[in-house]
Amino acid sequence: MNFKVDRLPFLNELNKVSRAVSQKTPLPSLAGIKIEARDNTLYFTGSDSDISMYSYLKSENNNFMLEIMEEGSIVLGAKYICDIVRKLESNQVCVEIMDGQLTRISDEYSDFKINGLKSSDYPTIDFSKPDKSILLNGFTLQRCINQTIFATSDKETRPVLTGINVKANKGKMEFVGTDSYRLAKKIISVHEDTNFSVTIPAKTLEEVSKTIESDEVMEFAVNDKKIQFWIGNTIIQSRLIEGAYPETSRLIPMSFEYELTADSRDLLSAIDRASLMKEDGKNIVKLRLTQDLVELSSKSQMVGSVKEVLNEAAFQGKDLDISFSGKYAYDAIRALECDLIKIKFSGEMKPFVITGCNDDSCIQLILPVRTYA
Amino acid sequence: MNFKVDRLPFLNELNKVSRAVSQKTPLPSLAGIKIEARDNTLYFTGSDSDISMYSYLKSENNNFMLEIMEEGSIVLGAKYICDIVRKLESNQVCVEIMDGQLTRISDEYSDFKINGLKSSDYPTIDFSKPDKSILLNGFTLQRCINQTIFATSDKETRPVLTGINVKANKGKMEFVGTDSYRLAKKIISVHEDTNFSVTIPAKTLEEVSKTIESDEVMEFAVNDKKIQFWIGNTIIQSRLIEGAYPETSRLIPMSFEYELTADSRDLLSAIDRASLMKEDGKNIVKLRLTQDLVELSSKSQMVGSVKEVLNEAAFQGKDLDISFSGKYAYDAIRALECDLIKIKFSGEMKPFVITGCNDDSCIQLILPVRTYA
Repeated sequence: MNFKVDRLPFLNELNKVSRAVSQKTPLPSLAGIKIEARDNTLYFTGSDSDISMYSYLKSENNNFMLEIMEEGSIVLGAKYICDIVRKLESNQVCVEIMDGQLTRISDEYSDFKINGLKSSDYPTIDFSKPDKSILLNGFTLQRCINQTIFATSDKETRPVLTGINVKANKGKMEFVGTDSYRLAKKIISVHEDTNFSVTIPAKTLEEVSKTIESDEVMEFAVNDKKIQFWIGNTIIQSRLIEGAYPETSRLIPMSFEYELTADSRDLLSAIDRASLMKEDGKNIVKLRLTQDLVELSSKSQMVGSVKEVLNEAAFQGKDLDISFSGKYAYDAIRALECDLIKIKFSGEMKPFVITGCNDDSCIQLILPVRTYA
Repeated sequence: MNFKVDRLPFLNELNKVSRAVSQKTPLPSLAGIKIEARDNTLYFTGSDSDISMYSYLKSENNNFMLEIMEEGSIVLGAKYICDIVRKLESNQVCVEIMDGQLTRISDEYSDFKINGLKSSDYPTIDFSKPDKSILLNGFTLQRCINQTIFATSDKETRPVLTGINVKANKGKMEFVGTDSYRLAKKIISVHEDTNFSVTIPAKTLEEVSKTIESDEVMEFAVNDKKIQFWIGNTIIQSRLIEGAYPETSRLIPMSFEYELTADSRDLLSAIDRASLMKEDGKNIVKLRLTQDLVELSSKSQMVGSVKEVLNEAAFQGKDLDISFSGKYAYDAIRALECDLIKIKFSGEMKPFVITGCNDDSCIQLILPVRTYA
């Protein structure tokens, strides 16, 4: 293998696929990035065996320089190759297999010789495309992920809750994340009448969200074993989480007796301040709702107490006191990305629902907590 | 105590003195900031008993609003009071002792009630000014600190090396930091003919460097017990490190047989890249110096090797190979803040000296290491 390439596009692909690479892998070759040079194209593979990324770099219309003098392939430690290419001075970099696996990475100032691994030692990853597929706008998918991912569980006790459940049915696509104390649901319309229900690891979707850089159409392809995201020149592939995802639709109350409308920025700052008074590391805030006064409060035996008045908020319903996690409410309101939000309650100990005032495509549900005071 | 004050200047003083406060203190009151309101002025004290900071806030020419309705004093948890004042919404904040030590911090939206401590529980700190004093320009002192502090030791085995030794004598002031493998020395001229030699904890000087925000004249006052820095409205006071500081002047070679002149940016990038090849976590780089070629190299048994050619560097002397810590050389060259630097050698295993080409007020000395290859 021997090629010369513009440094920045090369670095960009290395950085991208390196995100799938884990340094803590029992298989040494998986700590590396597989680089293949053939057909005037460089192919990159990175994987931690749960998530795999595959991308290519091909000069089209001479938008950058790539010259392959000799085809071939090698696996280079992800940490080293990314650092080296990032720190090189020149605009172009040469990569050449010298002797066995010893690979030279050089420019006019620097001459690195790195011990690589044979690409035949790299596991074979099947990137064949699953049959069920949906086309989505990049930023739409990114928003679906960002509005639900924070509600997933970080505890491995119920693995299925560490992922986002994605259902497609009759031209609708539904994203749900829940840790069983809160739930985030986003529904969008799609052109395809595909039918599936899969649970995708949160970590995969985080990488997908980071990889999306444009509003271009991308493809979401799935079967019951794996999922693939085709984003520009990149495939992100991941295993799915096995097991039945809980039926969540009946958790969301259908009727409400109380409704609060508030400016989301005001409410976020008030929750942020009220959350300074933590008790046992938990920031439980209490909302006191009456026709005349909307007040958020919190207290800590050790530190003190705080009351926040929401002058601009409007409340409809009988008087209500309700307590909940300040963090959960903050995450949920921020995820809505709406100026005005609506919180609907059906009782002191009933889950409540937060949506945008003019956008109900995203529903945030939070379970209150009992307080004794 | 009851006062109303513009939020940002108040926050600024709280943040400043909070830097002397440690959360890990056996004395609960030292986790707090002492706030005193008297004579139309707010006084702030923070201390971890090694470093103490004292500052005041007084409205002169009405440049901001401060209205003291009732004089008094209180100690408030540094972490809480800073977070609260930072997160408040309004331009002005009210602080009032309610009942005993319960203190109200409020604005038009928020109403915090925080458990304080009596200021009589706060240790008495003697801020009287030591007699030997030197006036210095703020940025000059900051540069003296930044050019020497990184060379101090972080190991407590020889406490005296964890500080910077500052000597004044015959209108000269000398700053020296060393960990016994490298040494940084800075000499400046001062107006005063004061005479002292003290070793100041690196941590103190870090805080001093952070506190200096302008080029105004500040005062450096010292006796054999303590040091004070008078910077604007702030006093930073610190204990000194006891024990004799090693005599370092004879460590610096007087004559040199080899001299390298190089662009500091080129050399820094080359060292940075060469340092990617670490062996046992150490980045030892080797400089090969001949009339025709200046080459920096490094290798790691596991990872590989690198060679860097410094085309623009000029070398005078016989051929020389010398190995040293890449990190030490990087720190030293960066600290000089010069475009062109000069490295003078007197042999493969002799300490070498780095200075600016046109500025020898700062001398960086590094001990080479022996390599077997």
